[in-house]
Amino acid sequence: MPSYKLYYFNLRARAEPSRLILAAAGVDYEDVRIKRENWPAEKASGKFPLGQMPCLEVDGVMLAQSNAIARYLANEHGLAGKNNMEKARADMIVDTMGDLSPHLVKIIKEQDETKKDELKKEFTSKTLPACNTSLEKLLIQNNGGDGYFVGSELTWADLVFVNHVQRPLPGPSSVDAFPKLKALYEKVIALPKISEWIEKRPKTDM
Amino acid sequence: MPSYKLYYFNLRARAEPSRLILAAAGVDYEDVRIKRENWPAEKASGKFPLGQMPCLEVDGVMLAQSNAIARYLANEHGLAGKNNMEKARADMIVDTMGDLSPHLVKIIKEQDETKKDELKKEFTSKTLPACNTSLEKLLIQNNGGDGYFVGSELTWADLVFVNHVQRPLPGPSSVDAFPKLKALYEKVIALPKISEWIEKRPKTDM
Repeated sequence: MPSYKLYYFNLRARAEPSRLILAAAGVDYEDVRIKRENWPAEKASGKFPLGQMPCLEVDGVMLAQSNAIARYLANEHGLAGKNNMEKARADMIVDTMGDLSPHLVKIIKEQDETKKDELKKEFTSKTLPACNTSLEKLLIQNNGGDGYFVGSELTWADLVFVNHVQRPLPGPSSVDAFPKLKALYEKVIALPKISEWIEKRPKTDM
Repeated sequence: MPSYKLYYFNLRARAEPSRLILAAAGVDYEDVRIKRENWPAEKASGKFPLGQMPCLEVDGVMLAQSNAIARYLANEHGLAGKNNMEKARADMIVDTMGDLSPHLVKIIKEQDETKKDELKKEFTSKTLPACNTSLEKLLIQNNGGDGYFVGSELTWADLVFVNHVQRPLPGPSSVDAFPKLKALYEKVIALPKISEWIEKRPKTDM
């Protein structure tokens, strides 16, 4: 088993899918959480290939880009899907949630509080429900929606989905109107290794 | 060999990486280019799982999300990398180029011509050169930068890179200041199957 170090801020956000994958796989790793005030010096050190986090160090080799890291871990630990088509379905589902990122970045960057509130309202009333509508449709395509997103077993798409539901805007209530998604969320967070990780992980706002 | 139909507008943009992969693999497919004026009816037909293109139809199964499609084709045809770490490096490089997409979408959506010009200027003078600096660094990490992006053979990361260089803003000149990137670009577009495709493909602005 290689030695893993996962570097990120003390946030769930872009690193949490990888942490959930490592938890589901029962794999040990070093969960390095860099303080905001130390990041400029860490970044300047040249250690991070793109000057960005998250990064995963695998036996000394540094890998950047959150989805590349998560997919790598999923491939290594049997959570990516059983064949190329299953892997592609997991990727499609992950990217459908990823399409929300530019909207969230825009909200975070907006300095004007009135405009920020408008953007939040648009996100929670339109953008996020549209995404969840697509996700429920994709879930139902797979065995009627009573299992997981892909094939017959847990994949990283389900774990990225847990993190998606636990976004601060608006949080787990976002799937209340989507019964199949809600059931999937509750099933995945109840898996022993996942519930154990959620219980013990550092509590952060996002 | 499965039957492939690739659906998109008559553009390179988000479908071209998949077309380049199919060209490199020498695989036949139906290159379906839907006219803008026909898209609302096509979208309403329910044929496209997310109401978006590109989509790849594989023996009747529809797959959406441009990177999921391209990675699937790369995995199927030996262009994804030889092991999970090589695949992750290819993914990291692809996602580094993908980080430009929200900037390009913002430019396309901006209606005010003055603001659009400012955004274009920022993109070509700052955002794109920063991305190319990262890409050249990643290229040099792999065998000093005289080969391909990943391992010792062509992967889809090199093909996504060709499409990246051929973006209309500002076009192939964007790598003039990056000698290793420029050499890679020229090497890949000179590969017989790639040059043949570039020669024969429909000529479009983007």
